Parts: sequence; structure tokens; C-alpha cells
Amino acid sequence: MKPLLLESRHLSLNTATLGPRHSLQQAVEGCVKYGFGGIAPWRDKLTETGLKQACRLINDAGLRVSGLCRGGMFPAGTKRERADIRADNYRAIDEAAALGAECLVLVVGGLPPGQKDLASARRQVEDGIAGILDYARAARVRLAIEPLHPMYAGDRACINTLAQALALCEGFGEGVGVAADAYHVWWDPDLPAQLHRAGRGQRLYACHICDWLVPTRHLLTDRGMMGDGVIDLNEFCRTVDGAGYSGLYEVEIFSDGGWWQKSVDETLGTISARIKALNAAEDNNEH
Amino acid sequence: MKPLLLESRHLSLNTATLGPRHSLQQAVEGCVKYGFGGIAPWRDKLTETGLKQACRLINDAGLRVSGLCRGGMFPAGTKRERADIRADNYRAIDEAAALGAECLVLVVGGLPPGQKDLASARRQVEDGIAGILDYARAARVRLAIEPLHPMYAGDRACINTLAQALALCEGFGEGVGVAADAYHVWWDPDLPAQLHRAGRGQRLYACHICDWLVPTRHLLTDRGMMGDGVIDLNEFCRTVDGAGYSGLYEVEIFSDGGWWQKSVDETLGTISARIKALNAAEDNNEH
Repeated sequence: MKPLLLESRHLSLNTATLGPRHSLQQAVEGCVKYGFGGIAPWRDKLTETGLKQACRLINDAGLRVSGLCRGGMFPAGTKRERADIRADNYRAIDEAAALGAECLVLVVGGLPPGQKDLASARRQVEDGIAGILDYARAARVRLAIEPLHPMYAGDRACINTLAQALALCEGFGEGVGVAADAYHVWWDPDLPAQLHRAGRGQRLYACHICDWLVPTRHLLTDRGMMGDGVIDLNEFCRTVDGAGYSGLYEVEIFSDGGWWQKSVDETLGTISARIKALNAAEDNNEH
Repeated sequence: MKPLLLESRHLSLNTATLGPRHSLQQAVEGCVKYGFGGIAPWRDKLTETGLKQACRLINDAGLRVSGLCRGGMFPAGTKRERADIRADNYRAIDEAAALGAECLVLVVGGLPPGQKDLASARRQVEDGIAGILDYARAARVRLAIEPLHPMYAGDRACINTLAQALALCEGFGEGVGVAADAYHVWWDPDLPAQLHRAGRGQRLYACHICDWLVPTRHLLTDRGMMGDGVIDLNEFCRTVDGAGYSGLYEVEIFSDGGWWQKSVDETLGTISARIKALNAAEDNNEH
């Protein structure tokens, strides 16, 4: 496998990594200070800042937007709710277009409240994406389905493997791909094959990294900094790169008790150091 | 799909459902009182009671042993540790044989401490099973690989889907099958196909049920009573039955803050009532 030497300029900062306490402006300033190549805002940060001001901040800083988080959440109990969801996804597409985002990340949604029919929820996801695809294509916004870890199948996303996401993408044709997040897919016995499938189809739109802690104390907000957990991130990033990925490596860490309590400097300084350590690990494991 | 009307006699009680406070004798008495067809002890309960006494209690009660929990935990950092693990698996096989257990459930183990190579851990699992298979066949003990939910890939089991488990089984031939636990596999988009694959190959050795709570507050000990979560257990049990499964439906609920605090009567009475409710749900959903 070809060597991969990640530097800060290959990274993007997902704003969720800084937690709710920090503003988009602080995130942008941090990215510039630590030499990150891009940023990936959540929509709450756009609302907080105002879309125009957010675009200005990010453009002036010369940052790429590796993705906008997020659209999706398609399954719902009623037609009315589904119409509202579609309208919200249109707005997300508009925002992604305004930002020049390289994709709109879709967290597709789980089971509607009180329901247990996962197959039906999955069909609703397919219908939901079908319903926004023309709008997204017209806006030149790529949709990146993010398969979430199976532990979120009930409440957040019923697309849980890359194979499942890619089968959907391939049914849709142009403009729909995947966001491969190490946290969600690292366990998958079919991971290398599916990353290559995504690459071959030009559907590898985004790559997210963080680490899986052992033990994990909370299903949502106990993700680890790269190097603190058990994911072989060096191998993961090399496989993604080998599959033809040319985008940024987006760092997304939900960490209520940990990184969300720290300063921007501490978090971004640690990310930069850990990326160097990943490269060093590669030197040691050369094969 | 053919109708499935579960009664208490189709159930087995996994002793983990009663939590650590209750003895094997209390579990056996509960099974008899509520008309369960079988029991599935964990090995700690055998140690506590003594193997001979445990066999006597269970036989005298006329209960089947749907499985012994558990063997496995194969990956390790050193040759010495792997030898100890093999010896312990031999003991587990002896115990399963003494009990006349319908299978020995294998929780295969995750990454050895400090390691990140999941592919290597998976090869160790394969080697580990290969190393005990002749012994198990000689003892006429069937080995049931239990794929665990992907959230346990790091620390408890690196076999995480039925497809992965069945590929292993098929490589081994006779005497190795799977334990399909609704909690671990309910999210799998390929679930029906894999259950049928297991059935066709005569490899569906055990079926475990409980429910997935939303939200789930702890990765290990926040499983739900059937009906309290989002798994379509009626559909799951019907598919298992339709795949040719003829064993008991084993109830295994890890619930530190909930069911483990309750009396045997409350837990087994609730299980019996919920099984009836599952049947009723089926009547309503007839299609």
C-alpha cells in the first residue's frame, strides 16, 4: 500500500469536535492557527453565526468546506412530517451550496417514534433521498450518505454499513456518495472491499476520523481522540487513500466529558500532534 | 410466513437475566414454576453450585439446557495465554457435555490489550476454534459462535455479523454453528437472508431474545425486556422459525439498573406475559 503522510493541511475540523461552547469564529481561527486545510460546520453553528457571515469567515480564512453536517432524518410517522423534513433538507442543500461545501452529509434517521419496522424506515430513507436528489443536483451539491454505527439503528440512522449505503448510491446514479467515518465502520469485516468499491465508483465523498475508546461509556458522546482508542487509523487512512480518496480527513469527536471541556488550543494542538504520531506508527509498521 | 405462537414451554431462561443476586437453584425453580422449557446457565453459576449438583438440579426439573455460556475469548497477546484459553475451553466443553447442553456458546473475544489489528484477532478466533473442534466433536458438544453487536468488536467479540460467523462455520464443517441473538443482529440489513443461510446449513443452534432500548444508557447492561424496545421480535422469531429453527427461545437480558433488581417472580412473570403479547401483536399484524 502506498505510504500516506498526513499533515495538518490534509485535515478538516468538524465543529462538533470543539463542542457547544465554542463559536464558528473560534473554530475558523483555530483551523488557521494550526494550519488545517478545511472545516466542516454543523448547521447549528451556521444559524448561530448567520449564513452570510459564516461564508465570509470561512472564505476569508481560505478554508475548504469538507462537508456540511447535516441533512437527512427522513423516516417519519406522517406525510406532513415528511414534507417538513424535505423542506429542511432543501434548506440544508442551499446552505451547502452557499458554503461551497464538498458534500452535504446525510444522517438518514432511524425508526419513527413507536415504530419497529426497520425495513420500512429504510425504504423511507430511499424515498427521502430520491425526493431531494434533483434539487441537490441542480444546486451542484453532492449528497454523502453516512452509514452510522449499528448502535444507532434505532434512533439516528438505519443505514449502518458502507455496503448498504453504496447499494443505495448505485441505485441513484450521479451525485450520491458516502461519508466513511472510522468510528462507524471500523468494525466491518468487509471494510477494505467496500472502501475500494466506493472509490471505484467515485463515491467516496468524505472521510471522518476519531477513535473508539475501550470502554466506551456513552453511546453518543464518548468518542476518543485519534490514538486513544483501538481503531487502526493508520491502516484506515491508508486504505481510504488507496481507494482514491482525494479529500480532507475530517476530525469529528463527540466527547462530552473530555475534549468538549478543553480549549481550542489544547484540542487542535493535540490533533496536530496525533496526526504526526499516526505517521510515525506507519514508519514502524512498514510492510 | 407460517404463524408462530410462542408459549412459556418454548422459552429458556438464560441465568444472566436474573442478575448476580440469584442462585442457579432459584433460576431452576423459577423455570419450573413458570413452565419454561429450558435453562441456559453461565459458568459462574455452575462454579457457585458445583457441576454435579447443577446437573442434578436441572435434570430433576426436566429442563432442557439450550446452551452453556460461554467458551471463546480466543485472541491473546502470548502463546502461553492462548494455551490457557484453550484449556479453559476444554473445561467448558466438558461442562456442556455433562449438562447435555444443546450447544456451547462462544463469545469469541476482541482485540488483545494494546493491539489494534482486528484482522489478526479474527484469525486468532479461527485458529482458536480450530484448536478445540476435535475435542468438542469427540464430546458431542456443538459450538455456537455468537456474533456480538459491532459495539463489542474492540473488547468482547470481533465476530460481528451472522455472515461473518457463518463463513467461519462453513469453513469448519460439522459441529460449528451460530447463536442468533436479536440484540446483536437486529440491525443487520442482511438478517433474513443470513438466518435462512444458517437454517439451510443446519447451523442455527440457538436463538436469544431481549430488546434494544432507545435510548440505551450503557453498552453492556442496559438491555430491555421484550416489548420495551424497538426490535420487531415477532418478525425476528417468525423468521428464525421459518428458517427451520427447532430449539428454545432463550431470554437473555443484561439489565443492571432494571431487571437485575427485581424478584424472580416479577422477571419470569413479565417474560411470560410479554411472550403472550408478542403473539397478540402477530394477530394484529397478520399479512
